[in-house]
Amino acid sequence: MESDENSMTSSFNPSKRAVVLLSGGIDSATTLAVAKDQGYLCHALSFDYGQRHKVELASAKKVALAIGVLDHKTLHFDLRGIGGSALTAPLEIPKDRLPTARAHGIPITYVPARNTLFLSMALGLAEVLGAYDIFIGVNAVDYSGYPDCRPEFCRAFETLANLATKAGVEKAGRFQIHTPLIELTKVDILKLGVSLGVDYSLTMSCYDPDQQGLACGRCDSCQIRKEGFLAARICDPTSYQT
Amino acid sequence: MESDENSMTSSFNPSKRAVVLLSGGIDSATTLAVAKDQGYLCHALSFDYGQRHKVELASAKKVALAIGVLDHKTLHFDLRGIGGSALTAPLEIPKDRLPTARAHGIPITYVPARNTLFLSMALGLAEVLGAYDIFIGVNAVDYSGYPDCRPEFCRAFETLANLATKAGVEKAGRFQIHTPLIELTKVDILKLGVSLGVDYSLTMSCYDPDQQGLACGRCDSCQIRKEGFLAARICDPTSYQT
Repeated sequence: MESDENSMTSSFNPSKRAVVLLSGGIDSATTLAVAKDQGYLCHALSFDYGQRHKVELASAKKVALAIGVLDHKTLHFDLRGIGGSALTAPLEIPKDRLPTARAHGIPITYVPARNTLFLSMALGLAEVLGAYDIFIGVNAVDYSGYPDCRPEFCRAFETLANLATKAGVEKAGRFQIHTPLIELTKVDILKLGVSLGVDYSLTMSCYDPDQQGLACGRCDSCQIRKEGFLAARICDPTSYQT
Repeated sequence: MESDENSMTSSFNPSKRAVVLLSGGIDSATTLAVAKDQGYLCHALSFDYGQRHKVELASAKKVALAIGVLDHKTLHFDLRGIGGSALTAPLEIPKDRLPTARAHGIPITYVPARNTLFLSMALGLAEVLGAYDIFIGVNAVDYSGYPDCRPEFCRAFETLANLATKAGVEKAGRFQIHTPLIELTKVDILKLGVSLGVDYSLTMSCYDPDQQGLACGRCDSCQIRKEGFLAARICDPTSYQT
């Protein structure tokens, strides 16, 4: 990771290609907009991993189209075979938790090794494409709960990436993991996204949407989203069930 | 990685559980036997990743049954969506290469980020199972060609594993990546396996087997296998096409 990237001092990289992880939520949409703003030509990458909120993939598609990418790939792998998370196993999604409760410990929605897997897939694709810059929208709010959203995790993955690959062996330090949101709050992220023209009505954050794809408004992810829009004084464009 | 493990000074760990990556070839079968010999109760893990030599999965099943495991899981994910390798894309598998040619450079059968992905899946499963020891059968012969078979790669993954997970955060250094074969030649591996009772007739190494699952005898993997049995003065139990 480049520290000037993290602190959002934008460097412009015309015609350089990047792989951008795109889940369809606020953070990944903003990250894609940042990568574009820095001049990267972007390959968006999403995952169908057996998540109960698969509706996010439709959002990812809309976001990729709206912001503009070279291509958008969705890779399939079934994390239900591993289980252990409320997002991939039949466990109840926590609802209506107070911020103090959400700040305590690693939540049941933690998916074991998820970002390691996502970044590994991105690394494989990046090497094939000859694109050595990988963007992931991890941020401060998430890393209070998820171990694989922390700066030290991202740095360790960057080290691994350059040891794991033919391209990394040929040129040390070739792969860079970019985490432009890692030190930003949800408010900072929303303000940044709006300044870059991100249409957040296309994004989806909910862990437990209904059959129509409407957000529950009560899971941790919905609550963080709602509170973010409120604190940023930006109109929340989300259609909630209630 | 524990250095005493790599040098094969066996430590006995009764009732401790391990996740063992099992492809169905010589190296992973021997690794499973080593883990068992060290007293681990083993969860075998195989991958259906769109490889053209999918017949290896039947071998993995037989090997797991013969050596004895707690369970054997096969996870599906499609690396054909990434491509870039003769093992997952419609590229020709090199045949009849001399050892000097095989020793030169990274071969076209290299699958971008494969061991990173395999270890990431093993890490996710291990965390869910509460098993913090992961065995992978990378070895000296392979690491001359594949970057993700080198000791520095495995050490970097171990560091990552302990930063990426809830279990690793709760107890630093909890996850260990065991690479008992990493310093062994194919001859050493075969002799070790025979001493542990491994039935190599159940294993499959070929990158390009025919419809009946018979090994081609000519790809790099078949040649390394043949040469290994010959040099170890062990009867090669493989059924080759020619």
